[in-house]
Formats: sequence, C-alpha cells, structure tokens
Amino acid sequence: MDSVDLATRAVREDRLWQRHADMAKLGGTPKGGVNRQALSAEDAAARSLLMSWAKSRGFAVSTDGIGNLFVRRAGTDPNARPILSGSHMDSQPTGGRFDGMYGVLAAFEALEALEDAGVRTKRPVEAVAWTNEEGSRFQPGAMGSAVFAGQYDLQTMLEAKDWDGVMLKDALARTLEAAPAPARDPGNALDGYVEVHIEQGPRLEDARKTIGVVTGIQGSRRFIVTVLGEEAHAGTTPRAARKDAFASAVAMAAAMQAATRDAEDTLRFTIGRVEVYPGSPNTVPGRVTFTIDMRHPETAALERYEATLRDAVARHAAPCAATIERVTDVAPTVFHKDVVDMVRDAARRLELSNMDMPSGAGHDAMHIARLCPTGMVFVPCERGISHNEIENATPQDLAAGTRVLVETLVRLANR
Amino acid sequence: MDSVDLATRAVREDRLWQRHADMAKLGGTPKGGVNRQALSAEDAAARSLLMSWAKSRGFAVSTDGIGNLFVRRAGTDPNARPILSGSHMDSQPTGGRFDGMYGVLAAFEALEALEDAGVRTKRPVEAVAWTNEEGSRFQPGAMGSAVFAGQYDLQTMLEAKDWDGVMLKDALARTLEAAPAPARDPGNALDGYVEVHIEQGPRLEDARKTIGVVTGIQGSRRFIVTVLGEEAHAGTTPRAARKDAFASAVAMAAAMQAATRDAEDTLRFTIGRVEVYPGSPNTVPGRVTFTIDMRHPETAALERYEATLRDAVARHAAPCAATIERVTDVAPTVFHKDVVDMVRDAARRLELSNMDMPSGAGHDAMHIARLCPTGMVFVPCERGISHNEIENATPQDLAAGTRVLVETLVRLANR
Repeated sequence: MDSVDLATRAVREDRLWQRHADMAKLGGTPKGGVNRQALSAEDAAARSLLMSWAKSRGFAVSTDGIGNLFVRRAGTDPNARPILSGSHMDSQPTGGRFDGMYGVLAAFEALEALEDAGVRTKRPVEAVAWTNEEGSRFQPGAMGSAVFAGQYDLQTMLEAKDWDGVMLKDALARTLEAAPAPARDPGNALDGYVEVHIEQGPRLEDARKTIGVVTGIQGSRRFIVTVLGEEAHAGTTPRAARKDAFASAVAMAAAMQAATRDAEDTLRFTIGRVEVYPGSPNTVPGRVTFTIDMRHPETAALERYEATLRDAVARHAAPCAATIERVTDVAPTVFHKDVVDMVRDAARRLELSNMDMPSGAGHDAMHIARLCPTGMVFVPCERGISHNEIENATPQDLAAGTRVLVETLVRLANR
Repeated sequence: MDSVDLATRAVREDRLWQRHADMAKLGGTPKGGVNRQALSAEDAAARSLLMSWAKSRGFAVSTDGIGNLFVRRAGTDPNARPILSGSHMDSQPTGGRFDGMYGVLAAFEALEALEDAGVRTKRPVEAVAWTNEEGSRFQPGAMGSAVFAGQYDLQTMLEAKDWDGVMLKDALARTLEAAPAPARDPGNALDGYVEVHIEQGPRLEDARKTIGVVTGIQGSRRFIVTVLGEEAHAGTTPRAARKDAFASAVAMAAAMQAATRDAEDTLRFTIGRVEVYPGSPNTVPGRVTFTIDMRHPETAALERYEATLRDAVARHAAPCAATIERVTDVAPTVFHKDVVDMVRDAARRLELSNMDMPSGAGHDAMHIARLCPTGMVFVPCERGISHNEIENATPQDLAAGTRVLVETLVRLANR
C-alpha cells in the first residue's frame, strides 16, 4: 500500500464526529446550533480545545497578529514551505455545528491520520483556524485570511469595533490570554492550500453526489438602493399627488426579478434587507432602502446584470428620486487547475461520487488563492441549510471529504 | 342685519389665531409642532387653558366619564337639546398645531362670536374637545366620541393601557385632577353636530378652494398580509430551490398596485408598514408581513377591491405560503343632507369658494353622525401635510371656516 492509501485509510470517522460533538458544546444553543462569534469566550474555548488536542499529538501551535491559529506537523525537508488546510471556528449568532468548524477539524484529522499512518511528507502540513470568517461581530468577514494574504491592513482591522463598541484588538488580547499560543514566524509563503467545507447549498444533495470539486468562488457585488418619496396621509392623499417610495421600490424590484431570471439558474439575485419608513400603516412611505446581493462565476455576467439593475432603478423611480450604490465588489476566484484536478482525482480514486461546481458562498480560500495553488472540497449538508441552528451533515460525508483532503494534501506536500 | 350676519361678522381672525398660538405652546416642539398626547400633562394644560377662557366668558364647562370636555353657551329654550361642535386637542407624538385643535378653537370662537354679537339661539350651543382622537398613546383612536355615541364600552376603554403600561383611567384621573371640571348630566341627546378641521390632504389647495363641504367619511379597511417562505443562503441557493418571501410579496404588491389604479383616483390604497425577516443582505427572506390601508366612500367598491387583493395574494404566493387578514372594517359615513346643504349654503352666502368632497381621514364626526344630523367643514392646509410638525394653515382660511361654522350652528340651533 502506498502512503496515500495508508493515510486516507487512517481517517477515523468516529473520531472526527466526536470532535464535532465536543466543539459543538462550546457556544452550544438549545436548538442544537452554536453561537460562537469571533474572539468571544466561546471562540477562546474552541482554540484551547484544539490546542490541547494538538499538544497531545506533539504538533506545534502558533498564532499571528490577527489571531489565526496554526497547528503544524513537520515535514522531512526543513526548508520546504508548508501546505495549509483549514477554515474557521467562529459562527453566526445562530449558526450551525459544521460551517467552518468542519474544515478545521478535517484538517486536524488529516494531521492525525498522517501521524497514525506514519506517513512522512516532504513539506510540513498545517491545520489553520482563520480568525473571524463570519463577520457577524466584527466587519468585514474572512478577515484573518485576508490579513494573512496581505489583502487587508492589520492595524486597520485591529481597530474594528463590534456593535457594543469593543475594539477587535482588545477582544483578541482577551482571547489570547485565555488561549495563549506562541507567535508564528513572519511570512506567508505557502506551497498549497485546500479547504473543506459543507456546501451550504442544495446542489450535491439534489444530485446525490458526495464530493463537490470546487472550481472557484462566485464573484459577488452588493448594492444599496435608496428611494426617496414623500410621507403623506394614507386616507387623504390621491394617488396622483403621492410620491410613494414603496410603490416605486416594488416596481424596481419586480423589474429586477424579471431581468435576473436566467434560464440556466446560475445568477444569484437576492433582496435581503428592506426598510420602509416611517413604517406606519396609515402613512404613505417616504423612504425605502433595500440591499441587493448578486453573485455569478463570471465577471462579464456581473457587469451585464448590474446594468439591468441600474436601468430598473432609473426607469421606475418616478415620481420618487432613487439611487443605487455598489458597496462591495468581489471578483470571482478561479482555483488552481492542479489542485482542482487533484481533488477530482482523489474523489474518483476513492470511488466517491462527485461533481465540479463553483462555490456560491465566499470562503477564506478566496484570499489564500492569491498566495498559492488553492482548491476546495465540498460535502453535502442537509437540505442545503446553513447559517442556521438546524444545519446538519452526516458523519460518512464528513469522513469522505476528509479522505479526499488527505490524499490531496499528501500529493501537494510531496510534489 | 339678521342674527346670522351679526354672528359671522363677530368672528375675529386675530383672536382665533392668537388662541392657536397660545395652545401651540402646550407641548410645543422645537420644529414648531406639538407633542400633546391624550391625557398627558400637556393635554391637561390645554384643558385648563380652554376652561379658563370659558370661565372668563361665563360659559359652563362639564366633563363625562371618558373625559370629553364640554363648554356650553345656554339657549333660550331650557328644554332644548344642544347643538355640538368641536374636535380634539390631543396630537400625534410629532403632530401639528391645527389637527383637531382648530376644530375646538373654531367652536369656541363661535361661542364667543355669538356672545359678542349678542345673538341668542333657541338651543344651547356647545364646544367639545373629544378625548383621545389620535389613538397614538391609547388605542383605539376617536375614543371619546365613540364612547359618547355608545359605540365603545366605557369600562373597557378605561382599562386601555399605553406603551408604558399606564392605564387610561389612571391617566384620566390625573388629568382631571390637574384640570377639574364638573360632571356632565348623563345622556347624549343632540340636535346637530358640526366639526371643522384642516383637510389633511391637498385637494382644496390644488383646486384653490377655501371651504370643503364634507359629504361623508370614506370607509376604510385594513389588512395584514403574511408571506412565509424559507430562509436560505443568498450565495448558494439556486432560484429554483428558493422560497423567497420578499419576491412573492413584490409580485403581490405589484399586482395590487395595478388592480387598484382607478381612473377617477378615488380609491386610496397604501402599503405603509413592511417587515422583511431576517433582514440580512445575504439571506433569502423567510418571512414578510405588510399592511394594506384601503379607503373608499362606497362600501360596494371596498368589497370589489378587497376581492382583487385576495386574488393577488392567492395568485402570487407560490412557492411561498401567504395569508391576508382583514383587521379593521369601518363602514363609510354619509353626512346628513340638511347639514351638508347648510354648510354649502353658508359658504356660498359668505362668498367663499367651495367644493363638495368626502373626508379621506377618520374624524370624531363619524361616531357622532350616528346620534344626530352631522356635517363637517374643511379648510386647506399647506401642501396637504398633516400628522407632521410642519403642518400649516392660514389665519384667513381658519377664520373663513369658522364663519361657515357659525352660520351653520345658528341655523341648526334655531330650526
């Protein structure tokens, strides 16, 4: 048996599942989900637990300026750059047990499987827990990986504040006090990165596939539309005299929904937050704001659809005034062909049903992809539900994704 | 000169305007509006001021079980039932100086003009300030007139609570302690009621008319629509797999707006309060609720349009589930032909431009119309703006409306 077979067979489904159960207690909610927001006491407890496991296996831990936590299994070449794998341990306020945490525990299981199988790799392999991927307490999200990749400025991020005015650097200091780790050597040179994650969508389950071979991450653009009308008495103001901000917003939204109905169902168009002022049943709304979240794997398509949104706002504003502002623009990420091929090959060799797919959600991998060859592995989650306390996945699928990860890491670490 | 001429000529524009200025200080806001909610300290101060003016003219005051405040100028027939005129002194939290208060001060000015002119009437004429018309502190609104007319149960209303849990009867007791008045004789027999009010809409100003001859009050029906979809990740969930509650709500609202676009612009259709859950930009909305306020002078039209609303909900709910619930149904009020004719005749005789119109808003007159011949007089308000601190009207128009009132009251009190 070669080293790849030895390592993938050493993945232990029961251990991986038990580790999920142990982590789910930290910030666990009555409904079975977790509330483990970035740099909270619960996050610190999760860091401590991961480090205790690392210590018992003799793996070295380290942390960097934004609090990313690394667990290293040494390689045979002392000068080689590491291969990294991981995700995040922070959750949404009413999050699930698998979003992020699965990627960290799969990476740690990979280190343990390599250790149990006695498989040496040329390059070190590291498990990483990126700080604050969710962005629900401190904005922006995917912060730790972005700082590591040099995309965001560390000092600026340390001064981010949560809703209660707590500064990130203070929350980080308290976290590192509760879960201390040695400082990591500076530098971010890597020879590869692989992140495993639950899909957070229904496509694998619908297609009855176990492994998603992730080809890239959709680009996303977010907009805020503001419609300014005029408040008026609902009983006395004729339609002709109204500037009804909600009526104009409805006309815009209907036009946008029609214009974004692509036959292939690739575009993701969502109006998620809508605020109507003053919000009184007998007052004509004077102001409406709504957000648009739009995603597509191709920049050209995002451009084209953005034009239709702007057109809908311009056409349907009257008799109100309206603006549309683009507030974020994240370019699509295309993962490295070598890593995508390795993930697909591993799934095939392990006889796991699989399909190529883009990621609908953003992940830390989108930042790390700027540093080194990068790929992702998806496994199904029940009914595609995520960011929800009822988020669920099967132990079998979690183990299958981890086996694909182990094979890919061994190949990257030895090439 | 006959008594009608003597009385209408005794209306003093300067005095009426000054009384508005005096009252506007009680609960006055920095923006020039008032915050004088029902049975507040400011309301008590307004009652005290009105009673002090009444006392100085020798008019008798009285109050009933719900705190309605009456100022009586005696008639020549001690057995005759009174003619009533008035409105309310409470305001919205950010209300204007004229909504309600004008009707009370016009009625009081009518008593003073009659007194100044030495005009005797057969029946007593009373000015009234109805308790809690706005309904912003204690629900429901138009409470005092409804209790007086026997439409609402006094004991139930006394147990109404405000947002802080204060019971109405306790607020009323404190108000009457600060502004005590003798108890009114029981009974609600009247021979006529006339209420003057700012229009609270733009029609008089647009048509350049001074007097609105109010023919009745629109019926109104209020609905709550609830759309239940399913929360989902905005980046990962294909359109075909979504149950987007806001998308369905937009389709319903667009269909409703199209169906309620009557050529004559008589129907009033307003979606005023819209709530979209969970309200996160990157989550497909799982639930939307919105209110519909619909008004029309004819019951048959309300029936017909309600059917189109129900049809829109049924047609456009899918793939979500939706319900529409009618939460209030106030039948149209048709004012008494005699009073409407008297108001129109008075305007003509006084050479004031005028037009017949229904009232878009509800008023205390809708309850009193069940007791006796009732009518209303409207005057323009600037740009139709009301329930707003910038609400405005001219001293000339306020005096003109009061002259129409005086003539109508004299005719009713002597017929």
